[in-house]
Amino acid sequence: MTTDQAPTVPPTDRGRRTREAIVDAAAGLMEARGIGATGLGDVLRVSGTGKSQLYHYFRGKRELVLAVIDRQLEKVLAAQPALGEGVGGGPGDEVRAWASSIYELQRDGGGPFACPLGVLSGQVDADPGWREHQAAAFAQWERRIAALLVRGQREGSVDPSRDAGEMAVAVLAALQGGLMLARVHRDLHVLALALDAAVDHVRPRPG
Amino acid sequence: MTTDQAPTVPPTDRGRRTREAIVDAAAGLMEARGIGATGLGDVLRVSGTGKSQLYHYFRGKRELVLAVIDRQLEKVLAAQPALGEGVGGGPGDEVRAWASSIYELQRDGGGPFACPLGVLSGQVDADPGWREHQAAAFAQWERRIAALLVRGQREGSVDPSRDAGEMAVAVLAALQGGLMLARVHRDLHVLALALDAAVDHVRPRPG
Repeated sequence: MTTDQAPTVPPTDRGRRTREAIVDAAAGLMEARGIGATGLGDVLRVSGTGKSQLYHYFRGKRELVLAVIDRQLEKVLAAQPALGEGVGGGPGDEVRAWASSIYELQRDGGGPFACPLGVLSGQVDADPGWREHQAAAFAQWERRIAALLVRGQREGSVDPSRDAGEMAVAVLAALQGGLMLARVHRDLHVLALALDAAVDHVRPRPG
Repeated sequence: MTTDQAPTVPPTDRGRRTREAIVDAAAGLMEARGIGATGLGDVLRVSGTGKSQLYHYFRGKRELVLAVIDRQLEKVLAAQPALGEGVGGGPGDEVRAWASSIYELQRDGGGPFACPLGVLSGQVDADPGWREHQAAAFAQWERRIAALLVRGQREGSVDPSRDAGEMAVAVLAALQGGLMLARVHRDLHVLALALDAAVDHVRPRPG
């Protein structure tokens, strides 16, 4: 599947900082108000950059949203080091450890918070390029979870007879739905229930 | 928990139709563009009603969103007759039947479609009254699922040793996350995986 590309990172430090300020401002506004309600004028005001700078890095809002999706995926993966490439972990239950780390991050930070990526999902339908870019971002996250599940299959905590990629999709669905309902109810216990169900789902089945 | 009340239904047929046209237009726009990007002017244009009519039924956008949330819950419950009060069903697997009916509705209608209620979740944070109303709507849906699970406990298809209310939250989380990811990926198989995991989660556990 081809997806639109967000523009490449500018070569100078100053350029990179300017571009980052624009993307950060746009991400914050789009998370809080929605993509549709965020105009380029708002992004300029919040980022403190000028119109010519914004148009130097982005052809317009269409392209800026792609960069916001990339940024949101970066945030998500940075907050989940257990999904990092080559993070072996000690012997034990890696899937449970990953699920617990998500719960603790939310609890310690004063959550429930919405998922930075998931919160945009209802809104990317407005543009096929946005929707494909969002799908590619979720696919990347799913591959990381699948790799975690494969490690779990090796250590014996995950059912080796089932497809790790398919289980990863169900696990991410539980996490997304759990975060969304926890946020609406303002109740982290909802997230715990959803994550427990996901971890339970991937366990080896007796018999 | 107290929540803001959407205004009561008008007494005349004509009034009821006008109010419904306004709520339908608002619901369609808010589903497609987001709450933040939907102005009352758009609602008037799409519904073909006048400003004075809208303000007769709603004090403003704040109140209109509450009525939209009610309407979205109505749509959801109407599409899931297996959750109806007093739907006994024959002997069998009611939870599986419910999950299958959701999948088939999406498949036969040309889905994946977003959940009419879930799609608003990221946006109700803008107003505490909206968020509480959304939470109450989800709580009503959860109670219906819990009742279904209790029937499953009686028929032996659902683990009788676990709390039906807590399982219902995990099931709804799986459904919400599954719908959201299926919609982003344009792939109904994602919904099937999430629903299978949910049905699997509530099964009696051997041993």
